Amino acid sequence: MNIVPIEAPSQALRPALQAKIDNLNKPLHALGRLEELALQIGLIQQTLSPTLRHPCHLLLGGDHGIEREGVSVSPRCVTWQQMLNFARGGGGVNLFCRQHGFRLFIVDVGVDHDLSGVEGIINRKIARGTRDFLHEPAMTEREMEQTLSVGRELVDHCCDAEQSNIICIGEMGIGNTSPSSVWQHLLTGLPLADCVGRGAGLDDAGVNHKLQVLTAACERFRQLYPEPTPELMMRYFGGFEMVAAVGAMLEAARRRMVILVDGYIMTACMLMAQRLQPNTLHYAIFGHSGDEHAHEAMLRQMNAKPLLRLGLRLGEGTGALCAYPIVESAVRMINEMNNFDNANITKYF
Amino acid sequence: MNIVPIEAPSQALRPALQAKIDNLNKPLHALGRLEELALQIGLIQQTLSPTLRHPCHLLLGGDHGIEREGVSVSPRCVTWQQMLNFARGGGGVNLFCRQHGFRLFIVDVGVDHDLSGVEGIINRKIARGTRDFLHEPAMTEREMEQTLSVGRELVDHCCDAEQSNIICIGEMGIGNTSPSSVWQHLLTGLPLADCVGRGAGLDDAGVNHKLQVLTAACERFRQLYPEPTPELMMRYFGGFEMVAAVGAMLEAARRRMVILVDGYIMTACMLMAQRLQPNTLHYAIFGHSGDEHAHEAMLRQMNAKPLLRLGLRLGEGTGALCAYPIVESAVRMINEMNNFDNANITKYF
Repeated sequence: MNIVPIEAPSQALRPALQAKIDNLNKPLHALGRLEELALQIGLIQQTLSPTLRHPCHLLLGGDHGIEREGVSVSPRCVTWQQMLNFARGGGGVNLFCRQHGFRLFIVDVGVDHDLSGVEGIINRKIARGTRDFLHEPAMTEREMEQTLSVGRELVDHCCDAEQSNIICIGEMGIGNTSPSSVWQHLLTGLPLADCVGRGAGLDDAGVNHKLQVLTAACERFRQLYPEPTPELMMRYFGGFEMVAAVGAMLEAARRRMVILVDGYIMTACMLMAQRLQPNTLHYAIFGHSGDEHAHEAMLRQMNAKPLLRLGLRLGEGTGALCAYPIVESAVRMINEMNNFDNANITKYF
Repeated sequence: MNIVPIEAPSQALRPALQAKIDNLNKPLHALGRLEELALQIGLIQQTLSPTLRHPCHLLLGGDHGIEREGVSVSPRCVTWQQMLNFARGGGGVNLFCRQHGFRLFIVDVGVDHDLSGVEGIINRKIARGTRDFLHEPAMTEREMEQTLSVGRELVDHCCDAEQSNIICIGEMGIGNTSPSSVWQHLLTGLPLADCVGRGAGLDDAGVNHKLQVLTAACERFRQLYPEPTPELMMRYFGGFEMVAAVGAMLEAARRRMVILVDGYIMTACMLMAQRLQPNTLHYAIFGHSGDEHAHEAMLRQMNAKPLLRLGLRLGEGTGALCAYPIVESAVRMINEMNNFDNANITKYF
């Protein structure tokens, strides 16, 4: 697999950044998480005066073969119906993008419907949904490479044409908590039962059935591949929208962009990206921890502290978008707040 | 004391509001806290299409006699120095007001320094700091009435002249965690030791000393007044900026405005307002739970769920201001998101 190594940000600037933050006119550490964010973004951008430029949001859509096994409460047609709804501007993702000034790119990476003529939807369809991983790999190696390059290309466009330095990624794909749970299970070793949740609203019987299907799929996979690589796990179970997200995250980290990570599915993609290139994590800010049962465990695996806990479980990147103003507050803090040298305040602590 | 009764919002609109929210094109309850906020604001404004108009922030400053007893890590002079810093636009409160479009009113309610000629500071000084409540009441009855009316007047200006329907209140007053802890202790019955925290950064010895001072003050108060009213607690211990905040909260609730509540001190003021007029609480949105030890307990007393937990402990209203975009997201959701009738989505749940 063709993945360029990702470097961690140089830590040489850390003492100067910390000193600048500590000299802002406030009790030491009194702006909590905002100070941590300012430090992280300063290191990513290698500057004492970080900026956020032209934020972009990638909304990636794809369908899943595993949906045929009845693992989701919502029917497959909701994926394309919602893609059309986003194209018309009426979805959750649209309104939060408008609120926070994000340029929105709606991308069909693998929706099981012809969306090629729809204005506002970028056509990068690999296939009309993945194959059913209960019986066969979700995608071929060639499809995986193509999908990763879709993510790369989109990020390069945001970085080069849009001059963006912060990217948010969201997904639309009925059934995509299932591959996310399998990735979590295989990558972290957490029992599958602890990785499976209600998705968009399964009842107890539904969760049980989902667990049985995923258990069977994992058993078959293990028999075929006793020592699988993360790359193989990605290809065997992943959705097109998820693998494109992994590609986008890797490229965004390589281009030294800030990556806003959304809920369970996008966190699973960041976990995969981190296993492929550990330094990707330095560029990630986790926006929201939702209700999906296994999300907290996955965040802990990466020592990630999400900014928000608002009980959102819509997907589309909405949790990460809602966290954006906090990130902006952090950047404003380090740039706009007076310090003890110019504010004529008795320094206290 | 002259306090006008406050009515709870009529609940007649609740079923229609809930139906509107449930019909937005998303899985049921998938926007979590945003849905709760939209319902609350819809009820406050008695409309299915709530709006947020011309948000205003009151920054209230005052000094405290109890500061003379060494209960704070910061010296008293920081209050007026910071007020000047706010007037020059260099404080935390300024940058978050700029970020979120809040009109900022900086008000001297009782700072121990002559700020009367300073551009950008509204002079409503009652006295140069309160009296030391270890030995005597912090303010007279007349001063308390004047201070409450300062808060009322400011809110009326925001409501009438600025046409605002959402108000945020912050404070600047070295030493003001002490009266807040005493209010919490006296109003809720929680042991004083559980109400006392580090303020802006006291060490263990400092916290012990603070607890001893406040214990002595409370014992003396109880001997003098075995059955005190909330009003007397407010007057005996409160700061001018705190009592003005209580007056502002009561008036904002009377005018059916949304009240954004900040950290520990402002939460103590909302607790006091609620004890004076229980229905005030219907109009409150709690922005942030900080690190101050006793804040969580006080929030629980009011069944309040703060929107953010970012480890902020700056005061000035910064925690509430950082939460504003979440409130705005909720209002955008109920107004801008498509519903299942117009989005052509298969209804799922």
